[in-house]
Amino acid sequence: MVISGPSGVGKGTLCKALLEEVKDLSISVSMTTREPRKGEVDGKDYFFVSREEFLERVKRNEFVEWAQVYGHYYGTPWSELKNALEKGRDLVLEIDTQGAMQIKEKFKEGVFVFILPPSREELRKRILKRGTENPDSVKKRLENFQEEFKYIFEYDYVVVNDSIPDAVEKIKSIYMAEKCRPHRIIKSWKGE
Amino acid sequence: MVISGPSGVGKGTLCKALLEEVKDLSISVSMTTREPRKGEVDGKDYFFVSREEFLERVKRNEFVEWAQVYGHYYGTPWSELKNALEKGRDLVLEIDTQGAMQIKEKFKEGVFVFILPPSREELRKRILKRGTENPDSVKKRLENFQEEFKYIFEYDYVVVNDSIPDAVEKIKSIYMAEKCRPHRIIKSWKGE
Repeated sequence: MVISGPSGVGKGTLCKALLEEVKDLSISVSMTTREPRKGEVDGKDYFFVSREEFLERVKRNEFVEWAQVYGHYYGTPWSELKNALEKGRDLVLEIDTQGAMQIKEKFKEGVFVFILPPSREELRKRILKRGTENPDSVKKRLENFQEEFKYIFEYDYVVVNDSIPDAVEKIKSIYMAEKCRPHRIIKSWKGE
Repeated sequence: MVISGPSGVGKGTLCKALLEEVKDLSISVSMTTREPRKGEVDGKDYFFVSREEFLERVKRNEFVEWAQVYGHYYGTPWSELKNALEKGRDLVLEIDTQGAMQIKEKFKEGVFVFILPPSREELRKRILKRGTENPDSVKKRLENFQEEFKYIFEYDYVVVNDSIPDAVEKIKSIYMAEKCRPHRIIKSWKGE
């Protein structure tokens, strides 16, 4: 399950709450060249690596998808997917639209969810509230949202994050509903 | 939302429970030529009409879909859909695979759910338990299930009715998830 959405929309908070409620889900830890934010743990929030190491890994085809976002590299290591598959677990990937489109090409089984803010104005407020961005960076993020928004019909579902419990409930429903797709049920149905 | 499934699988019970939990949903009342079962109310469970009247209404194009099942006619009156649409309500149609395929051709917006029993053996038990069918009729219903099963991949979702609360929860999730389809969200999103 791929979760995308503009910077500041609250993807991280939603994913964390989702994982607490749905025990069958794991989250994929991305690799990035950006600096850790306060409180972020290497190997848990991200794998933090240097630009050189990242590009070396790109050359070695170690990423399922990778993209450059706001000047930093982000990628999903193949090892994250393999680990989940081996354990028979479903995986949540919190990635941007560029990465999502790469996953969509490679995995027909993927389920794609785009998180929308209640409005553009509310998104601006949330980015400001985070307090980590300068005015220029806020502007860039809002412009980027316009670009990401163009991909919205490439997604299977759109969830408006107006309240965290409601949005989590919706993503949970999407997960449960997707588990009821005919090909996923028929595999395990013992009646025929 | 169209709900199909073999005779005896528990569609009626699930629909009733679903409607109690999801207040935005109404159920479409079908018209039929079969005799009312004990406790069934005309205009609530079905509109009971004679064979002559039913066929007259078929001629007048009064049905969205209609089919003959176990020797009786069943149909969904257009008026049921119009009423729901006018009130802006979502509608549940509990109909057989023949009717479902007619709806699928006419309504792209339809969401199609097939209810499966945990096993064929369990379905046999449930039909017997209902106590309204003779051995020949039980046999016919089980054979018919084989036919209906062929349509399973025409459905969007399959729910195994192993426990009523679990199955209702799944159908509710399907309904909530479908409400999050991009074209349904973008219509009402005020942010752009």
